[in-house]
Amino acid sequence: MAIVADPAPPRTRILSGIQPSGRLHLGNYFGAIRQHLELQATSDCFYFIANYHALTTVKEPAALRRNTLDVAATYLALGLDPDRTVFFRQSDVPEVCELTWLLMTVTGMGLLERAHSYKDKIARGIKPSVGLFAYPVLMASDILAYRPRLVPVGKDQEQHVEMAQDMAASFHHAFGTEVFVRPEPRFTETARVPGTDWERGPDGSFLRDERGRRVPQKMSKSYGNTLEIFAEGRALKRAVGRIPTDSVALENPIDPDDCLVFQLCALFLEPDEQAELRARYRAGGFGYGRAKEVLLAQFDRVFGPYRERKQALDRDPDTLEDILRAGGARARAVARATLNDARRACGID
Amino acid sequence: MAIVADPAPPRTRILSGIQPSGRLHLGNYFGAIRQHLELQATSDCFYFIANYHALTTVKEPAALRRNTLDVAATYLALGLDPDRTVFFRQSDVPEVCELTWLLMTVTGMGLLERAHSYKDKIARGIKPSVGLFAYPVLMASDILAYRPRLVPVGKDQEQHVEMAQDMAASFHHAFGTEVFVRPEPRFTETARVPGTDWERGPDGSFLRDERGRRVPQKMSKSYGNTLEIFAEGRALKRAVGRIPTDSVALENPIDPDDCLVFQLCALFLEPDEQAELRARYRAGGFGYGRAKEVLLAQFDRVFGPYRERKQALDRDPDTLEDILRAGGARARAVARATLNDARRACGID
Repeated sequence: MAIVADPAPPRTRILSGIQPSGRLHLGNYFGAIRQHLELQATSDCFYFIANYHALTTVKEPAALRRNTLDVAATYLALGLDPDRTVFFRQSDVPEVCELTWLLMTVTGMGLLERAHSYKDKIARGIKPSVGLFAYPVLMASDILAYRPRLVPVGKDQEQHVEMAQDMAASFHHAFGTEVFVRPEPRFTETARVPGTDWERGPDGSFLRDERGRRVPQKMSKSYGNTLEIFAEGRALKRAVGRIPTDSVALENPIDPDDCLVFQLCALFLEPDEQAELRARYRAGGFGYGRAKEVLLAQFDRVFGPYRERKQALDRDPDTLEDILRAGGARARAVARATLNDARRACGID
Repeated sequence: MAIVADPAPPRTRILSGIQPSGRLHLGNYFGAIRQHLELQATSDCFYFIANYHALTTVKEPAALRRNTLDVAATYLALGLDPDRTVFFRQSDVPEVCELTWLLMTVTGMGLLERAHSYKDKIARGIKPSVGLFAYPVLMASDILAYRPRLVPVGKDQEQHVEMAQDMAASFHHAFGTEVFVRPEPRFTETARVPGTDWERGPDGSFLRDERGRRVPQKMSKSYGNTLEIFAEGRALKRAVGRIPTDSVALENPIDPDDCLVFQLCALFLEPDEQAELRARYRAGGFGYGRAKEVLLAQFDRVFGPYRERKQALDRDPDTLEDILRAGGARARAVARATLNDARRACGID
């Protein structure tokens, strides 16, 4: 079997997966996309659209295809450079499934039984499937196949990288040879992105912080509290118009830290701009309507310049396919080299 | 993606996997190999050496490679016709790993938790790994990938075929389209092959049947009570010599049904030959030494003609590789067609 050499990259290799779970929203943008795009300048980035993973929850083929292309168009419109970054669809590298099997044979049941994400999903009422349970092994395979040094994660995803470290170590120990690079988590410093509603307790009452202010719920597709990145025009106005605000007289001051609209605006603003907006809230005579206009203006300022490109890509699925396939071929060569080493290590070559 | 048409076979397609767990023995021969070889005359056979599966218990790459080639040489020496039968190494068709992932996403945890083989292995002290737990999904994938109508199994393996049926049905239900052929178990009528020792209870005493006779333990590599098919000469004599017999005077009659040597001889003998041997046991003056000579003669009669061919194949790993690869290419084309259909069905194509 030919060995494809994977030359040592001069820049740190970084890997990240993106769930094709529908139109991407501010939570995705401020929580991941922005960092993904910035990292391109300094790192050797591998980003994949995780459609094998999505199958654990999505059972609608047409929606999965559509969401996959929408994610691709969103990243490309916002500035992902497919020449610089290896950008691909997970299922274009089936090698990760074979590596998943190899890793499964060295992974103790206890490791997966301790996984938070499985327990959380079951608690949320998702039917316990083997795919859901084995998900961290596929994730480890996705990471280890590309031998990245760093995996950007939020704190809630840290365990997945630790599990990948554990599986790599188990494999090395079982077969007495080093095949994988130990990946390290790279924590992103982003605050959690608020959604368009408040978090509530089991009895329906608002959760409050230590100062008595309501706490926004995290923005998430599964909570139905998102604002889409590429919403625009009347649809965007309607979505922002629906963000709940309090009934107070216009002349009254408003507490910005107890206002969803302020917290959403803050995502877009530099510290000095935030301070200025706070001051207007506290001065009175500002009102929620004006606050929502500020939020709409930020959408236009930050995403407006990319809308046309997004629409052009949406109309051109062939180009999206070509870009994903070209990225898939580059990714596959790297995964193939790792897999060949792993096959040799365990004696199935 | 090109669709490779899999023409409807004129003969019933049969699939079976063979564990590369070391030198094959009488248990393998009378329990599976003989039937496998006979089925070639009437069926469209797909037989694979299950090295992905073996990884759940074998962590010695050199041994796994050696065992894989030894299984191949044994089958080929005994008459497997690689032009007629698709004979291949499991890991030459990595498509089954991808299909395994797809099946995992539609398989409930409860189905695997009910699997006997997992519980049995854990009870025998094997460390519970994810591979061991997920084994029935890989097995279902192996079956469904080749769309066989029949899977020859012993009663202890029936559940695996039922699980493959369940996974196929779940997949069809989840994605609203028929991709797989429902496999049916084909029960082999072979009695269990006795090993070279008696079964004992937890206190070390012999288990006895309703007539007070000792019960042979099943022949199995894991019990260390095997007679290898291609043992010969002094090694074979030593192995047969070690079969435990009772201390009785030569002139006394012996109960054939309470004698391991008789039960091993019976595997090789036609009913009338068995009756004749029984009569000699009961007549007295026969003795265990003579019985062992009968067993040795049967080895020479049944396996002797194939020993030279086995030795020639053992000396020629390149030929074995070529045969396995050619079989793998044929198998892969069939699995590829099934997998393409499955990928299309779930929207990751």
